[in-house]
Amino acid sequence: MLYADISNSIARQIREQVLKPGDRLPSVRLLCQEHGISMNTAKRVFIELEAQSLIESKPQSGYFVSQLPYQRLPLPEVSKPSPISQDNEPEALISRVYATRGKPGLTHLSMGAPSTEMLPLAKLNKEIIQATRRLSSSGTAYEEVPGNEDLRRMIAARSLSWGGKLKESDIITTTGGINALFFCMMAVSKPGDTIAMESPCYPGSLQLARSLGLKVLELPTHPVTGVEIDALKKVIKKIDVCLLVPNFNTPLGSCMPDEHKKEVVALLAKHGIPLIEDDIYGDLYFGTQRPKCCKTFDEAGNVLLCSSFSKTIAPGYRVGWVAPGRYREKVLKLKLVHMLSSPALVHEAIASFLRNGRYDNHLRKLRATLLQNYLHYIDAIASWFPADTKVSRPQGGLAIWVECNKKVNTTELFETALKNKISIAPGRMFTLQDQFENCIRLSLGVLFSEKVDQKLKLLGKLLT
Amino acid sequence: MLYADISNSIARQIREQVLKPGDRLPSVRLLCQEHGISMNTAKRVFIELEAQSLIESKPQSGYFVSQLPYQRLPLPEVSKPSPISQDNEPEALISRVYATRGKPGLTHLSMGAPSTEMLPLAKLNKEIIQATRRLSSSGTAYEEVPGNEDLRRMIAARSLSWGGKLKESDIITTTGGINALFFCMMAVSKPGDTIAMESPCYPGSLQLARSLGLKVLELPTHPVTGVEIDALKKVIKKIDVCLLVPNFNTPLGSCMPDEHKKEVVALLAKHGIPLIEDDIYGDLYFGTQRPKCCKTFDEAGNVLLCSSFSKTIAPGYRVGWVAPGRYREKVLKLKLVHMLSSPALVHEAIASFLRNGRYDNHLRKLRATLLQNYLHYIDAIASWFPADTKVSRPQGGLAIWVECNKKVNTTELFETALKNKISIAPGRMFTLQDQFENCIRLSLGVLFSEKVDQKLKLLGKLLT
Repeated sequence: MLYADISNSIARQIREQVLKPGDRLPSVRLLCQEHGISMNTAKRVFIELEAQSLIESKPQSGYFVSQLPYQRLPLPEVSKPSPISQDNEPEALISRVYATRGKPGLTHLSMGAPSTEMLPLAKLNKEIIQATRRLSSSGTAYEEVPGNEDLRRMIAARSLSWGGKLKESDIITTTGGINALFFCMMAVSKPGDTIAMESPCYPGSLQLARSLGLKVLELPTHPVTGVEIDALKKVIKKIDVCLLVPNFNTPLGSCMPDEHKKEVVALLAKHGIPLIEDDIYGDLYFGTQRPKCCKTFDEAGNVLLCSSFSKTIAPGYRVGWVAPGRYREKVLKLKLVHMLSSPALVHEAIASFLRNGRYDNHLRKLRATLLQNYLHYIDAIASWFPADTKVSRPQGGLAIWVECNKKVNTTELFETALKNKISIAPGRMFTLQDQFENCIRLSLGVLFSEKVDQKLKLLGKLLT
Repeated sequence: MLYADISNSIARQIREQVLKPGDRLPSVRLLCQEHGISMNTAKRVFIELEAQSLIESKPQSGYFVSQLPYQRLPLPEVSKPSPISQDNEPEALISRVYATRGKPGLTHLSMGAPSTEMLPLAKLNKEIIQATRRLSSSGTAYEEVPGNEDLRRMIAARSLSWGGKLKESDIITTTGGINALFFCMMAVSKPGDTIAMESPCYPGSLQLARSLGLKVLELPTHPVTGVEIDALKKVIKKIDVCLLVPNFNTPLGSCMPDEHKKEVVALLAKHGIPLIEDDIYGDLYFGTQRPKCCKTFDEAGNVLLCSSFSKTIAPGYRVGWVAPGRYREKVLKLKLVHMLSSPALVHEAIASFLRNGRYDNHLRKLRATLLQNYLHYIDAIASWFPADTKVSRPQGGLAIWVECNKKVNTTELFETALKNKISIAPGRMFTLQDQFENCIRLSLGVLFSEKVDQKLKLLGKLLT
């Protein structure tokens, strides 16, 4: 057993509050015996948990679940969406929130991507210049339909990190992540079909499904372990497609345990229901090990794995990809018909960024930044938000989910916050049902600072 | 009356073979009297027609329709598609042809875009470098939903050239031209609707419509004046949407006269049928005057005008746009849901290319190249192809349409040609019906050369 597996399962118990602040952890010696690991491996488990501020050591006494204030904030409950599609799209709200995008003078806590200072701008600019020289037509010609060959090769090589065995030919590049989801929905569904998704869920996926005439069935979702498999089983006969974000989805930041992923993949394959897996946040883990994908357990080619570099390198470049399993031909045709070609120059720049080994270095820094950012944010929430606030424990990704007192209406709060130069993402955005009106998604994409702390303090006041 | 209007109408008579090779044109003096124009204006009419090799002067005798060999080749007839949707998509053929895209060693006469040597690569590379410096986030951040402001402003400013009155806010940028057509089809139709198009027609539009579950009704189309209005009137009650490429469409290269555009716009508005206008070739006129658009005559906001820079500056950049008239809000939402943002860097580069006044210079050169190219190609066709070959007289754009003897099957010819290192676009690609099997589209995007001449000679032999 890997130390990362052990630290992950202890971390999960802490996040789920099975282990509570102040609880004592087993000793290093006991851990060795229980799991049959070496002293060094056991020590790495504790170092890993300490790095995430989940545990703290006391001299001569061992390790304890840390007493940091936020450890005492309760987790949001498992969501309980209606088992019937409601498709009540919060269109006006979403437009309101998106209209604040990039507006100067605001603190963009609604942002869904890392801010510019977290991105490797100087290196990317060099890659762009080199790409204009390297591509025979300086990127002015159409690419071949499957997309940049080097990029597909690098993505295939990286699939080892999540236990995948992708080949270059399994992959089709797309113009951003949403474009990949679009191709997948088009490939495996038709208008009137029902698609199951987590609840709460990325508004873009909800809107995309609605735009294609699909009915959305929202699934009860645990803030730490993701979609509830029993709930999925109950509706399995009612759905035609399933879309999941198993790793660090927005807004919850949950991560499905491997055994859940495996079970869901088998369940859906058994019922002939294609799984669209959005792994756009998979590389942004706070721990030391990259989580597996559902695709890792996909024997039947039933999983269409989508991802992009929008949340890790450059949102505005529009570089995404899909490994569509047995739907490859369909997706390839859809790309030809709907896009012809992706923007060649920026795709080559990202390919080269990966080829030069810059991605891993960059990710290491970005993950450390996001983890520190998360610890600051959650600390500020514990300090400034009302005592009855519940908060998610993301294990990676870019979001914190805050559940306020039932009396709070965050759609109204959005307007008040905006007057105070803060942009937040109200909970109602993340569902097609009348729920989450007392929730907020905060972005970890904005670097924590004195100013952000003050804005969170202000937000806390508006909540009381 | 402008000299360009007069020269256009004479040019049309020559292309339609109302005026035949050797026919004498009216004298300069008569032209002045007939149209109430000055001698200088009348002279410009003849200079313009001579520049297009349509007429030639004989000393002391005046101007005559030129006797060049190709003037004697007959025009293809008005197409006669079935008035019932057939939706018999030539999927395998299209895949075969697209698979040859960019393959080295081939003469790419199937290409639908200008080749690299016709594009302003060095200037674009400079624009790209400057864009990385100019954009505050070096193009890594998402754009605002409507797209690059400068680009929209420049497109609006250029609308004067076709008698348009677009404002920046009327325009939404898209990730290439196909992406604009997609947004428009999504905005104005639903699965099961019927869309009318020219026949023959751009395969991308046919496939896009099919992909969205639309039935395609192909309209009889004249090789010089475009869609037959009477035919459109006959089916007006059967259609929900109309998509036209009024200026230099592919594969025919026809151009609807202004009065036809006006009439079609009024007809469709009267019946509440939205018109999607694809003007992607509008800037590539062989004459001296940019043709108007249907949008020029659109009072009701019923025309959704689409275009891109893929056929003029950089196919691989994916920079397109749409002026959706009264469907603006719908298209804006579709862009948000399906794309989030276009690739910021390349859009900024094109914006700057326009801002710096480089586009007009480039277009002037490109148009001259394409006209010369056309004259060479059509000359080679007249020299090498069988005597019963019919050929279009494009007035701009990137294509020549060749109609061979009924016995020829160009789908089979494609394979034979490919063995001889030539890629052609067989006629069957341009329809969903069983027609045009004896036709070929040749690309003007490949610079004519001794080698191309030899390949056309070879193709001519394969046709006999």
